[in-house]
Amino acid sequence: MDIREYVIEKAKAAKEASRYMNCAHSSTKDNALRAMAQALMDNIDNIIQANSLDMEKGEKTGLSKGMLDRLLLNRKRIEGMASGLSKIADLQDPIGEAIRAWKTPDNLTISQIRVPLGVIGIIYEARPNVTVDAAGLCIKSGNTVILRGGSEAVNSNKAIADIISSAGVKAGLPEGFLQYLENTDREAVKVLMRLNEYVDVLIPRGGAGLIKTVVENSTVPVIETGVGNCHVFVDESANFDMARDIVINAKTQRPAVCNAMETLLVHSSIADKFLPYLKEGLDKYNVELRGCRKTAAILENIKEACEEDWAAEYLDLIMAVKVVDSLEEAVDHIYKYSTKHSEAIITENYSNAERFLNEVDAAAVYVNASTRFTDGGEFGFGGEIGISTQKLHARGPMGIKELTSTKYVIHGQGQVRK
Amino acid sequence: MDIREYVIEKAKAAKEASRYMNCAHSSTKDNALRAMAQALMDNIDNIIQANSLDMEKGEKTGLSKGMLDRLLLNRKRIEGMASGLSKIADLQDPIGEAIRAWKTPDNLTISQIRVPLGVIGIIYEARPNVTVDAAGLCIKSGNTVILRGGSEAVNSNKAIADIISSAGVKAGLPEGFLQYLENTDREAVKVLMRLNEYVDVLIPRGGAGLIKTVVENSTVPVIETGVGNCHVFVDESANFDMARDIVINAKTQRPAVCNAMETLLVHSSIADKFLPYLKEGLDKYNVELRGCRKTAAILENIKEACEEDWAAEYLDLIMAVKVVDSLEEAVDHIYKYSTKHSEAIITENYSNAERFLNEVDAAAVYVNASTRFTDGGEFGFGGEIGISTQKLHARGPMGIKELTSTKYVIHGQGQVRK
Repeated sequence: MDIREYVIEKAKAAKEASRYMNCAHSSTKDNALRAMAQALMDNIDNIIQANSLDMEKGEKTGLSKGMLDRLLLNRKRIEGMASGLSKIADLQDPIGEAIRAWKTPDNLTISQIRVPLGVIGIIYEARPNVTVDAAGLCIKSGNTVILRGGSEAVNSNKAIADIISSAGVKAGLPEGFLQYLENTDREAVKVLMRLNEYVDVLIPRGGAGLIKTVVENSTVPVIETGVGNCHVFVDESANFDMARDIVINAKTQRPAVCNAMETLLVHSSIADKFLPYLKEGLDKYNVELRGCRKTAAILENIKEACEEDWAAEYLDLIMAVKVVDSLEEAVDHIYKYSTKHSEAIITENYSNAERFLNEVDAAAVYVNASTRFTDGGEFGFGGEIGISTQKLHARGPMGIKELTSTKYVIHGQGQVRK
Repeated sequence: MDIREYVIEKAKAAKEASRYMNCAHSSTKDNALRAMAQALMDNIDNIIQANSLDMEKGEKTGLSKGMLDRLLLNRKRIEGMASGLSKIADLQDPIGEAIRAWKTPDNLTISQIRVPLGVIGIIYEARPNVTVDAAGLCIKSGNTVILRGGSEAVNSNKAIADIISSAGVKAGLPEGFLQYLENTDREAVKVLMRLNEYVDVLIPRGGAGLIKTVVENSTVPVIETGVGNCHVFVDESANFDMARDIVINAKTQRPAVCNAMETLLVHSSIADKFLPYLKEGLDKYNVELRGCRKTAAILENIKEACEEDWAAEYLDLIMAVKVVDSLEEAVDHIYKYSTKHSEAIITENYSNAERFLNEVDAAAVYVNASTRFTDGGEFGFGGEIGISTQKLHARGPMGIKELTSTKYVIHGQGQVRK
C-alpha cells in the first residue's frame, strides 16, 4: 500500500470511530482510561524492551544526551504515564457542559453545549510519553486521535499505542479510536495535513521547524504551540529579593522549556544596585549573561548582546539583559521581540502593574510571579496538550476544554421565522 | 507600487493601529461607531452617486438581477447600515470580560480575560453593506480590519470605507484602524493570505468557490463560513400542522441563504398522509420537489431525486424529499450528506428528540423549530460576521464575542515554581 492510501485508511478509521466517541458516556471513557493505565502497568517489561531498541539505535546514530534522556523509558516513567491517565479519568467530563443558555423573545431555548472536536492529529518528536498524554486528553474530551511520533521513538510508541489501543477497545471505546502512524516518512505528514475531510484539527508539538512546516503547509486547521521568548521586567519599585527569586526561577528552574524567561529588562534607576545583586544569585547556576551597553557598564566581564539576542529563545542557561528607562520602553521592547507567550513585571507600583497587564499582549501576563507557571498542570487543568501561542480557538495552556468545540441546541414549540 | 508592497503596507498599518485599538476604551469605540453612523447619514447622496457607477457597470457587464439587487444602495438601505452601527454601539463591550477566574493552591489569582483578536481580514463579494457591518463588529470587539470587497462594488465600497474610516479617526480611533483594499486583483488576496506577521485571522464571506480558495491557500488562520445543506426530519409522531409550517418556512421564507432547508426526510409510517398535505402548502410557493422512489410513488408528477440532489445546496425553491423508515435512517442520511450547519427534527416523542439533538453533529440542532433561526440577529447577538461551519474557535453564528481571543492575567505575591 502506498503512503497516501495508508494515511487515508488510518484517518478514515479515526473519523468513523469519532461518530461513536461523540456520544460515548463519561463512564465508558473513564473506565477505558483506567483500563489503559492498568494495561501500561501490566506491560512494563514489554515497553522497556521496545524502548531499548530505540535507545540502542539512538546511541548508534549519535543522538544527544538530552535527546536520549527524553527517549528513555524506565519503570518509574511508565508508572508516571499510567498515573497520568488515571488522573485524567478523575477530571470532570467537559462534554455536555452548557457554556451559556437563554430564551429568545420567540421563546426558543438556546443552549451552547460543549461537544468533541472530532478527530485530532498530533504530530510530535522524540518523547514517547506524549503518546499516552495526548491520547488520554483527546479521549477524555470525546475525540479520536491520530498520533504521529518521531522516528527515534517508533518502537516505544508502537508498543505503547498497541497496548493502550487494545485496552481501550476492550473497555468499550469504538474500534479505531486511536491511530498510530508507524510510517515515519515525511510524506505521511504531508498527506495528513491535507485530509480536511477526515481530520478536524492538527496540533504540532516540538521544535520551531516542525511547527513552521505544519502551519505553512496544512489545510487542516492547526493550533500552533510553543515558541516562547519570555521577558521579566524589574520595575524601579520592585522588591529586590522577590525580583531576584523570580528571575532565578524563571531562568534556571527548567531552562529548556517554552515558559522559561529569555530576556531580563531592568529599570535604569535601580539597575546599578539590582544587577550585581542578581548576578551573585545567578552565578550559582552558571547563567551566561549577554547585556546591552548599560548592563555591560554595570556588570564586568559579560558579553555584549547583539540584535539576535533580543529575539533568541535560548532554551539554555543564557540570559539577555537590557536596561530600560521606563515602563513604556519595556513594553515597547516586549512588543517588538515577544512571541506573546508569557511576560512578567515585578513591581510594587499598582498603576504600572495594571498598565503592564493591559498593554502587553501575550497568552499569559504576570505581576510578581515566575513565567514558569504557564502550564496546564499549574493552572489546574489536570494536564495539557501544549501551550497555544495563537489567538484563534485557544490561547495559553490547553487542557481538555480546549479540545472541544460547541454546538447550539435549540428547543422550540413550532416556531417559524417571520 | 506593486501589489505585494501595496497589500503589505495596508496590513502593516492595520497591525500598528491594532496595538492601540487593543487598549481603546469602550466609550471611544462606541462614540466612533455612532460618529460613523452619522457620517453615513450625512453622505447618503455621495454614496448613492458612487453606487450608481457600480450599478451602471453591472448592467453593462450583464450581472444577474439578483446580483444587481444585492449591489443596489438607496436611502433606505444606507439608513439601515447606519442604524446597524448604532445598534452595535449599544451592545455591551466584550473586551475585558472575565470568562473564568480562580485561585491556585499557590495563591496565584488567574483570570481568563477577553481581548481582541488583533487584525481581522474580511474577503467578501458583491454586497456593499458588508463593508459597514463587518467594520462595525470588528471595531466593537477592539480589532482593526482589512476589507477586500468584490470588484463589482468597488466604487460603493471605496466611498463607504473612506466615509466611516475618517469619521472613526476623527472620533478618536487610531489612524489606520480600517483598511480597504481597492486593488481587486486576485493577486492582492493571495498576498493577504500569507501575511501571518500582520493578519491574525481571515474570514471569507461569499460563495463556496471563494471559501474553498481561502481555506486551501491561506497560512493565516481562517474561519470558514457558510455552506448549508440543511435537513428537516418529520418523525412519525410529528404534529402535521407544525411540521408543515416549519418545512414551508425553512424552505421558502428566504431560499437563497445558508440556513434554508434543502432536504426533507419523512418517516415512512406517516409519509402517505403527510406528503400530500405538505405539497398542498408548498405548491402556493411553487416549490419544485425531487423525491426518492417512495416519495414519487406517493406524490404524482414529481422529478426523481438522484445522488447529487442529496448533496445539493440549491439556494432556490427546490427541495429534495426522502422517505426513511426510522430515526436511525434519518440520522445516517444526515451524517452522510450534511454540511453540519443546521438540522431539525419535528416530533412529539421525547426520546427521539433527545437522540436527534445528541447524535446529529451540526452547528445548530433543533427540535420543533425552523432552521432559519440560525442567525446572529435571531440568536440575540446584535449582528453577525457570518456563520461558522468549522469546529475550531467558533461554530454557528459569530457575533462580537466570536471576534475575540483571551489572555490569562495572573496576580502573584512573589511566587516561584518548585
